Amino acid sequence: MRIFLFLLCLPFIASAQPNKDSVMIKRMADEIMTNGKAYDLLRELTKNIGGRLAGSPEQHEAAIWGKKSMEAFGPDKVYFQPCKTPNWKRGGKDFAAIIGADGAINKKLAVMALGNSLASKGLIEGEVLAVANFDELEKRKNEVKGKVVYFHSVMDPNTIETSKAYEDAYSYRSSGPSRAAKYGAIGVMIHSLSTAPDNEPQTGVMEYNDSFPKIPAVALGPNDAKDLYAQARKKAVRVQMQTYGYFLPDADENNVVAELKGTEFPNEIITIGGHLDSWDVNEGAHDDGTGVVHTMEVLRVMKALNYHPKHTIRFVLFANEENGGKGGLKYAELAKTNKEKHILALESDDGGFTPRAIGILCSAAQLKKFQSWNPLLKPFGTEVMPGGGGADIEPLPTADKNVILSSLVPDSQRYFDLHHAKTDVFENVNKRELLLGAVNIAAFIYLVDQHGVNL
Amino acid sequence: MRIFLFLLCLPFIASAQPNKDSVMIKRMADEIMTNGKAYDLLRELTKNIGGRLAGSPEQHEAAIWGKKSMEAFGPDKVYFQPCKTPNWKRGGKDFAAIIGADGAINKKLAVMALGNSLASKGLIEGEVLAVANFDELEKRKNEVKGKVVYFHSVMDPNTIETSKAYEDAYSYRSSGPSRAAKYGAIGVMIHSLSTAPDNEPQTGVMEYNDSFPKIPAVALGPNDAKDLYAQARKKAVRVQMQTYGYFLPDADENNVVAELKGTEFPNEIITIGGHLDSWDVNEGAHDDGTGVVHTMEVLRVMKALNYHPKHTIRFVLFANEENGGKGGLKYAELAKTNKEKHILALESDDGGFTPRAIGILCSAAQLKKFQSWNPLLKPFGTEVMPGGGGADIEPLPTADKNVILSSLVPDSQRYFDLHHAKTDVFENVNKRELLLGAVNIAAFIYLVDQHGVNL
Repeated sequence: MRIFLFLLCLPFIASAQPNKDSVMIKRMADEIMTNGKAYDLLRELTKNIGGRLAGSPEQHEAAIWGKKSMEAFGPDKVYFQPCKTPNWKRGGKDFAAIIGADGAINKKLAVMALGNSLASKGLIEGEVLAVANFDELEKRKNEVKGKVVYFHSVMDPNTIETSKAYEDAYSYRSSGPSRAAKYGAIGVMIHSLSTAPDNEPQTGVMEYNDSFPKIPAVALGPNDAKDLYAQARKKAVRVQMQTYGYFLPDADENNVVAELKGTEFPNEIITIGGHLDSWDVNEGAHDDGTGVVHTMEVLRVMKALNYHPKHTIRFVLFANEENGGKGGLKYAELAKTNKEKHILALESDDGGFTPRAIGILCSAAQLKKFQSWNPLLKPFGTEVMPGGGGADIEPLPTADKNVILSSLVPDSQRYFDLHHAKTDVFENVNKRELLLGAVNIAAFIYLVDQHGVNL
Repeated sequence: MRIFLFLLCLPFIASAQPNKDSVMIKRMADEIMTNGKAYDLLRELTKNIGGRLAGSPEQHEAAIWGKKSMEAFGPDKVYFQPCKTPNWKRGGKDFAAIIGADGAINKKLAVMALGNSLASKGLIEGEVLAVANFDELEKRKNEVKGKVVYFHSVMDPNTIETSKAYEDAYSYRSSGPSRAAKYGAIGVMIHSLSTAPDNEPQTGVMEYNDSFPKIPAVALGPNDAKDLYAQARKKAVRVQMQTYGYFLPDADENNVVAELKGTEFPNEIITIGGHLDSWDVNEGAHDDGTGVVHTMEVLRVMKALNYHPKHTIRFVLFANEENGGKGGLKYAELAKTNKEKHILALESDDGGFTPRAIGILCSAAQLKKFQSWNPLLKPFGTEVMPGGGGADIEPLPTADKNVILSSLVPDSQRYFDLHHAKTDVFENVNKRELLLGAVNIAAFIYLVDQHGVNL
């Protein structure tokens, strides 16, 4: 570290002339950076409760914890929105291995069944057909029958924005199993959708196409996946695999909603949220514990500073995003039933890393209005950029087509190192980065509340 | 993680019309993100060699490793620049404790002697005078004699750019001990210059004023420091402390310099560098292993792509920054002796986190030229901002007053969590963030080489 900086040189430093907005935003920022509870709340959620897939006792506990914790901040009300969710169970310790010529295990593979994968019904064994992509699968469809198809679904390291690389590889996880089953595959393996230089497998949702057999599907750790691909492109490789997944009847879960009632426009709603549920294999720290505690922290700071919003602000901990998205659907359904007017919704579901932008999906004219606030946001690291949303708020336009969707956009470099892997734990969340996310959400939501979304 | 992004919304995505420069920068970026060696080199430096304070066998080994590793990339030449450096030894396991009324240890404190601190010559004991800042020390100077002065040198959590908060607290570490010794203190403790929510003490350079007694000085872990401060503000608290520091005769170390000879302007030099030395208490991963391997990676990619620079480019691993800055002084001294022309120098010494800016110290007119390159840099996450430099390159203007100083400015949120603490290890460096730093340095240096620095 150099000892003296000559000058400071970051967007953080750009600052507007002090005015009512900049003063209030600075007060919120100081309150969060000095007294913020988001980090302690995250420790409670991840360490005391832990992984919390919908249908698990932990997810039930998390909703009770979320309600109680938000009540302690003193909003006007806190309530549950009950909803039915899928109830998938991993069922056992997933297994995969490369088998030698003698039929014995040559190498155990780091493996996790994909979410929704059904049990293999015993150990299955077959030759691997390793394909680079769907094009190759289609070309070689006659070779698939009776084999285990491996998709080399590596995220492109050259795509700087990792969520874009994830999107590009996503369909191998979501639809690869059924596309291989269509041609008679008995099982599917994919390269985890991971950027990590490690061997941790990453689970995540997979969707069977009901037209084809529901074959077991697993993600391999990145190192094992690359090794398997290299081997199987050169010679015949046999693998064994076993999964144990099954479904119980749908579970009863709850969105947790806290409200600050608007003083001027009580019937116009601004929503902030993250999702309470996580995969079963980790603590759901960045996915989406950080979005949950961002949401709670914004409520806390508004109460701590005795801020009375003009619009009604809802702080929502959604019950089920990972495998079904039922929390967001329920929220939108009730909004529709109750004919609610929603002006803007913001989701934090891309991790608790240093915030880089507030992404907004809106018209060019509206964007211009939002971007006029950039001088107020830049001292805290973000600026308004086009594009935004989140799985939990995306159903909301079915209730109010005018609602503007937005999201916190954190730095994306580390997210897919630990996304859906067992490494998504509290220790991998940085306190300042987490709090700074809450600062930027609070600042943006304050501006929306003060100035509305109309031109 | 939301499943589908509607649009992408980061500065990363802004992109210029393809032209010769953008094509070359994209080639460099792809080569680094796909085949980069920086992460593997960093593993070698941190895990095979380890901590490497000037004068240690490890620092000697690091220079030999640096030379050999850069030779393997095939630059025009690689050579040592011998220099004398201080040779401070910690000498033992630093100790501090709060003492109970019965004289027994009440609580052991997490502690590290500051760099350059001399031995306490046995266990010393005294009452604590806990002061908030230098102003309070001056007001209470009559109370200092015979006591251990504690400075509550907390970095301001509300300062978003942490290097600014570090600068504000810096003088307590560098000059606090002598300022307390002036009034008769027998020892000094400070709150580590740390942002971490943990109890890891952080060392770092301290400078005695020769006019006053050279009393022992230590940094406390953040939690222990806050506890001690709270106690000592309420009642008399006695502490013991022991340090073991001493100096050996100056050591012989080496800057390691690799060169690519310029094809058009061989006598105009561009320098890129980081410092090889680190404190003794950790692996020197972010400080400054990442700057070292950034430098090596830029050399590697230029050779891998067969890039022949117009200007001579020097890749410098400086021998001694932490406690003396002798590496940079030697580099500048030789530049002066040899009447070299230096057009620009860039240092990477603020960690291997996601790059946010290229900081440049130059005139407004020059800045405008550099900022015209922003569309080429933004797709990779940075833009040119005013302000830059680094301890190793800051002496260079004594050799060529026209040299422009610049630096890679990474995201600063995590740096002071681990700076000079035992937690500055390889495991806390993220591969993609590290490589992305090299991408942005390579891109900027390429542009300087192609277009020069003149208006």
